[in-house]
Formats: sequence, structure tokens, C-alpha cells
Amino acid sequence: MEQRIMTSPAAKIEEAVTFNDQGLVLAIAQQHDSGEVLMAAWMNREALAETLESGQVCYWSRSRQSLWRKGESSGQTQKLIELRIDCDGDSLLLRVDQKGVACHTGRRSCFYRAIDKGGDMKELLPVVVDPKALYGR
Amino acid sequence: MEQRIMTSPAAKIEEAVTFNDQGLVLAIAQQHDSGEVLMAAWMNREALAETLESGQVCYWSRSRQSLWRKGESSGQTQKLIELRIDCDGDSLLLRVDQKGVACHTGRRSCFYRAIDKGGDMKELLPVVVDPKALYGR
Repeated sequence: MEQRIMTSPAAKIEEAVTFNDQGLVLAIAQQHDSGEVLMAAWMNREALAETLESGQVCYWSRSRQSLWRKGESSGQTQKLIELRIDCDGDSLLLRVDQKGVACHTGRRSCFYRAIDKGGDMKELLPVVVDPKALYGR
Repeated sequence: MEQRIMTSPAAKIEEAVTFNDQGLVLAIAQQHDSGEVLMAAWMNREALAETLESGQVCYWSRSRQSLWRKGESSGQTQKLIELRIDCDGDSLLLRVDQKGVACHTGRRSCFYRAIDKGGDMKELLPVVVDPKALYGR
């Protein structure tokens, strides 16, 4: 008789995702409809589980060593539309709906500068929200 | 009298990019026109310099510990259209023109699977090139 083994969501995620030696996996956020790449950050197991459970993106802040509920202080939240994983399981692509701006500088995306062959940088995206309005409360 | 200091491209890049303690910076490749996120990999100083110089994307392979000229064996090269850098300088966004497929599985993008809340995976992208045709030579 066939034996059915029930596997928990946490166990399935553990099998699918390759966390690095710091227990982290790369997470790239992309606006789901426009295709804009908004930012890159990291998740630990807890941040990933919370993101899937709540539908609101939560990262792991390496500098603060704590969960980073995106938009918690700025209001610029990311609603998870779809979570994708790459072929070797060590990078996630978060298809999100970004409220307002992703970047702490007040720009839509953190990738707002281009570097040319000569090493010179050019700003591509304008500041659309005053950073003071995001964090000055 | 104003003194002009000439700064080399390498010095400017060193100032702009924050390499991690392994001397690497994250590089995310995105198809420049469609917006598809194709893959995520790493670059060291040499790979980044070569990419900017040649206009063809070259990564650093952590598993092989060597330069990884994307498409060198498979023919699936990435032409650099524009290189962007994020606000804290530790992630690059490569806007590329991907020839064929980015993924070694023969799919257009490495992010070809979605994970749902229950931890179950679903394949989103078809195999468009037989991997044997890419590497079986």
C-alpha cells in the first residue's frame, strides 16, 4: 500500500532553497507589471516564511541583524505578487507591487545610476519623494 | 590655480563599487527591452573591468574560482547595454541583450519556477533549447 508522507511548507522550502553559510538567500525585488528591478536584499528562513505567510515582503537586515519589514517605517511597502526561485535555489525573484518608492533616497529603484566604461556615473532616476518625508517623522 | 587630478577608470570603479570580503559584487542580469530578470551571479574586479571594456558580460564563477565569460561554451552570450549600480554600491544591474537562453537548463531565465505559500513549486518557463545542444559538444 502506498504510504503518503505529509511534508510541511517549511520542509518543502528548506528543500527548495539553498541558504548560504550565513543562513541567507538573495532576494531581488521586481515591480510585477512594469518589470523595473527595484532593489536587492537578503532573507533568512524567518523572513522568507513571514513573506510567504503575510504576503508583505520582509527581508533580513545584515547591518541591523534583524527582520526588516520593508516599509515599516517609511510606509513604502512591497506586496508580494509571486515568488520565483532560480535554477540552483540560491536566489529569489520577488515579483511585487511596490507602494511609492523602493529606495531610501526617495527614488523608485535603488538602481538609479549607470556607470560607463570610463567609470563615470550618471543619475537616471529622479527623487520623487523627499527622503525627509519618508524618515523624518 | 586649480589643480586637476586625473582619476583612472579603475580608481573610479573602486570608489563606486563596494566589493564584499571575498572581493565580489552581486550582478543581476536583465534583458534590456523586455525587462525579464535572467539570472543573478557575481563579479570580481577583473570580471567587472573586462565586462566594461569588452561589452560582453563576464562573471566570476565561485564554484570554479575562475572568470566565467558567459556563453563561452554554450554560445549564449550577454551583450552589455548598460551597467547600473544601486544606492549602496554592492549590487549591479546589468541591462543586457541575451542571445538565446540565460539558463543552463535551456530556459530563457534561471527564475523559471514559482514557490507558493505552501512551499509547492510550479514551472513557469518552457525549455526552449535542449541543454545537450548547449553543452553536448
